[in-house]
Amino acid sequence: MNIVKELDGFFNPSAVAIIGASREKGAVGRVILENFLTNKEKGIFKGEVYPVNPKADEIAGVKCYPSIKEIPGKVDLGVVCVPARIVPKIIEDCGEKGVKCVIVISAGFSEIGNHALEEQLVKTAKKHGVRIIGPNCIGIYDPWSGVDTLFIPMYKDSPKGPLLSMPRPKKGHIAFISQSGAFGAAVLDYFAGTDLGLSKFISYGNKCDVDEADLLEYLAEDETTRAIMIYIENIKEGRKFMEISKKVALKKPIVVLKSGRTAAGAKAAASHTGALAGVDAIYDAAFKQCGVIRARDMEEFCDMAKALAMQPPAKGNRIAVVTDGGGCGVMASDEIEFQGMKLAEFSKETLEKFEELKKQGILRDFAVTIDPVDLTGSADDRGFVESMKLVLSDLNVDGVILLPMHQVPLVTTDLPKKLSEIIKKYGKPVVVCDIGEADMAKYYRRLFDEEDIPTYPTPERAVRAIKALVEYGKILEKLKTSKLKYNSVVNRLRK
Amino acid sequence: MNIVKELDGFFNPSAVAIIGASREKGAVGRVILENFLTNKEKGIFKGEVYPVNPKADEIAGVKCYPSIKEIPGKVDLGVVCVPARIVPKIIEDCGEKGVKCVIVISAGFSEIGNHALEEQLVKTAKKHGVRIIGPNCIGIYDPWSGVDTLFIPMYKDSPKGPLLSMPRPKKGHIAFISQSGAFGAAVLDYFAGTDLGLSKFISYGNKCDVDEADLLEYLAEDETTRAIMIYIENIKEGRKFMEISKKVALKKPIVVLKSGRTAAGAKAAASHTGALAGVDAIYDAAFKQCGVIRARDMEEFCDMAKALAMQPPAKGNRIAVVTDGGGCGVMASDEIEFQGMKLAEFSKETLEKFEELKKQGILRDFAVTIDPVDLTGSADDRGFVESMKLVLSDLNVDGVILLPMHQVPLVTTDLPKKLSEIIKKYGKPVVVCDIGEADMAKYYRRLFDEEDIPTYPTPERAVRAIKALVEYGKILEKLKTSKLKYNSVVNRLRK
Repeated sequence: MNIVKELDGFFNPSAVAIIGASREKGAVGRVILENFLTNKEKGIFKGEVYPVNPKADEIAGVKCYPSIKEIPGKVDLGVVCVPARIVPKIIEDCGEKGVKCVIVISAGFSEIGNHALEEQLVKTAKKHGVRIIGPNCIGIYDPWSGVDTLFIPMYKDSPKGPLLSMPRPKKGHIAFISQSGAFGAAVLDYFAGTDLGLSKFISYGNKCDVDEADLLEYLAEDETTRAIMIYIENIKEGRKFMEISKKVALKKPIVVLKSGRTAAGAKAAASHTGALAGVDAIYDAAFKQCGVIRARDMEEFCDMAKALAMQPPAKGNRIAVVTDGGGCGVMASDEIEFQGMKLAEFSKETLEKFEELKKQGILRDFAVTIDPVDLTGSADDRGFVESMKLVLSDLNVDGVILLPMHQVPLVTTDLPKKLSEIIKKYGKPVVVCDIGEADMAKYYRRLFDEEDIPTYPTPERAVRAIKALVEYGKILEKLKTSKLKYNSVVNRLRK
Repeated sequence: MNIVKELDGFFNPSAVAIIGASREKGAVGRVILENFLTNKEKGIFKGEVYPVNPKADEIAGVKCYPSIKEIPGKVDLGVVCVPARIVPKIIEDCGEKGVKCVIVISAGFSEIGNHALEEQLVKTAKKHGVRIIGPNCIGIYDPWSGVDTLFIPMYKDSPKGPLLSMPRPKKGHIAFISQSGAFGAAVLDYFAGTDLGLSKFISYGNKCDVDEADLLEYLAEDETTRAIMIYIENIKEGRKFMEISKKVALKKPIVVLKSGRTAAGAKAAASHTGALAGVDAIYDAAFKQCGVIRARDMEEFCDMAKALAMQPPAKGNRIAVVTDGGGCGVMASDEIEFQGMKLAEFSKETLEKFEELKKQGILRDFAVTIDPVDLTGSADDRGFVESMKLVLSDLNVDGVILLPMHQVPLVTTDLPKKLSEIIKKYGKPVVVCDIGEADMAKYYRRLFDEEDIPTYPTPERAVRAIKALVEYGKILEKLKTSKLKYNSVVNRLRK
């Protein structure tokens, strides 16, 4: 069966049963039930919601069923939050009911050495053709369909009153798969607070059945997803992962944060998820071979995904910098070289056209028009627009880092909109940096983000983000070539 | 004359004259005048404020003087924002008036090739014993004394109305010297938005007279300053800088961001400030020798300064990690090794005491109590407090990275206060990471910051911050030893 059809029940169920739904406010089975009910009320979740609990007639005003088998209609998704020991029995029930997708939130399996129980769970699921996400996970958050099994309470008490503690990111185009639930939740908080959009979040815990490779295959076909983030501490089935990611990477960029890289980290990973983190160099080589971009740390992980979801890949590594703050241009230039890219050498034509702009008074005489371009503090919107046109149309430029500091007086908040069309027209990647954390800086960055021009708060982070677009360009080139080679071999064999 | 006395007029003037004060709203000479008048009204600036402009009788309701020489009282500080060509004449006037400190905001000197005019300026100043900051700079912002020559308007228009565009950071203990005005302003915006406190900001532009070394010497004695940040693209007087920073580093940590490091960056720096950025390896060696900590990028620059201003140096590089989120512990462990530090090996006694905590039910049985310590999602405040006591008292631990994820249900906002005393007691550096950008994450981090326990939003940034404390520990050790050696040599010679 097609994996997309097989896993679709996890993300777009026509009905969900929460098995272990609880009357107790704040309990896992209660929070999850309320998530679905709230989303249904808001019109985000379109399916039916069935609480299952043999000890209750109704929970949160909704009729409760003693067993999933007694629910009258069809159920696509089961969410299980009962004690570990009875989970296999519940899976049996799900199988008999015809439920094909089950998220097992419950902990108490292989992660604490209870391998037999986990094997029993897997065996039961296999028997009935049930696919499992988990156990020991926080499950799925899908802002598009309203599936939401995040059971960490949304608010937490403080002396200032309840504060948003487990926020939900808005709808967007980045999918995020996380082996660690806690880290996953933390990154969602980062997404929400920085207004970054998410397509799907999946925490798959012990991955007793559905693993990162299955999810990759599903996400490759998911229309809302443009870039895929994976946090992993280990990969169990290396060959499967490589085969699938090679195919997926041709369609969508994949960025991975693989921790447990050093001896110290590997030891830590072993006590965290029991993961044998393995020799990092092997992972490194494998990722390279199968077209997966590797982030060095959490920040780069998120920054790269943002760029990959918003901008096209670069066709080469010749980067132009356009700024009104000389110091920032210097920093960006340094980082471009550190990251193995290079400053572009503008064509003679571009240089001449820059001189023309000076003559017309659009740029000041003292503006620097070799790369990095420094329009200086006298820059205005028009200067930026005309300079960006020149730079983007130059055949020696593969991508642009734009640093239009908001502090410069004549640069206005109209600039992002003015640049948006131009940037789309040339099809070359552009990333933006503006420094600052007060109101104007945040507002200004958001205006660019809304135009799908990704912004970063330091020059170096912008450079490392565009590097992902350069890498993805290389990956596509390589994978297409090797696919062509493969096809030509196959074709010759057929003759 | 003692440099501290010599430069004090810049920071604590009993009277300031704004030469080139303007009637025009938004003009440089008007914004600066208003800064001082507002700060005087608020009781922050305690001195007299005199506008100087031969074409006005009064500006902003304050009596205006045609020349600085006609001001009746003593003036310590002149702020000059008149056209470049008349600046030497103004310096002459200042000299005759007995003003010893002058900030020249005006541009149009060596940065555009006008070397003769700059030499004339310097000559005039020297003749009268006037010290100059600038020209071509944005001057000083001192939140303690109210000196504020930042002339970029504080608010900027947007479709949402005027937004805070050039915010002022609050009073604090980090001094920041910047060769680039634009970058300096941008970093102030970052400080303000992240609630980081500043002792003094100095943008010194072309540094025709007062340079980074003079400022270092002054700041070494400044009571409000605990750590010093310097952004530079070049150093003109290398020997002087090294001599002075060696002395200053014994008293206060210095962290430098020197850009123009690569060939690309150096080229960019040359067109930015005309700086000959020089071979980076030479700078690197020089910084090492004189006890200056070097940041790799803007983010590390700010992160390190925050740690250095809040926490004591480490006596070694054995770092303990204490977390409730396993994945984050793994990431921190990786970065510790990447940064040349190592995970601590707890003493037998510590390990036994951890077992005791488990027996008493303070920690759960499945908590991991070797480094990195993972209290898991079942952690509570008491578990953190008791674990921190054990770890901090272990002689094999030189510093601690604490990652108490706010999403964990039993961890409360009381934790920062509970830990504050304990951390101070042991005198070992502690830095904190909590991930997230929504309300609770920000509030929680701020609570730690208020206790002078610096926080960071990713595990890796926390690790790179504690690295600065490890480096500063090494620097102190080395400088003290070499000073002792030097003294013993001198003493022997005397015999």
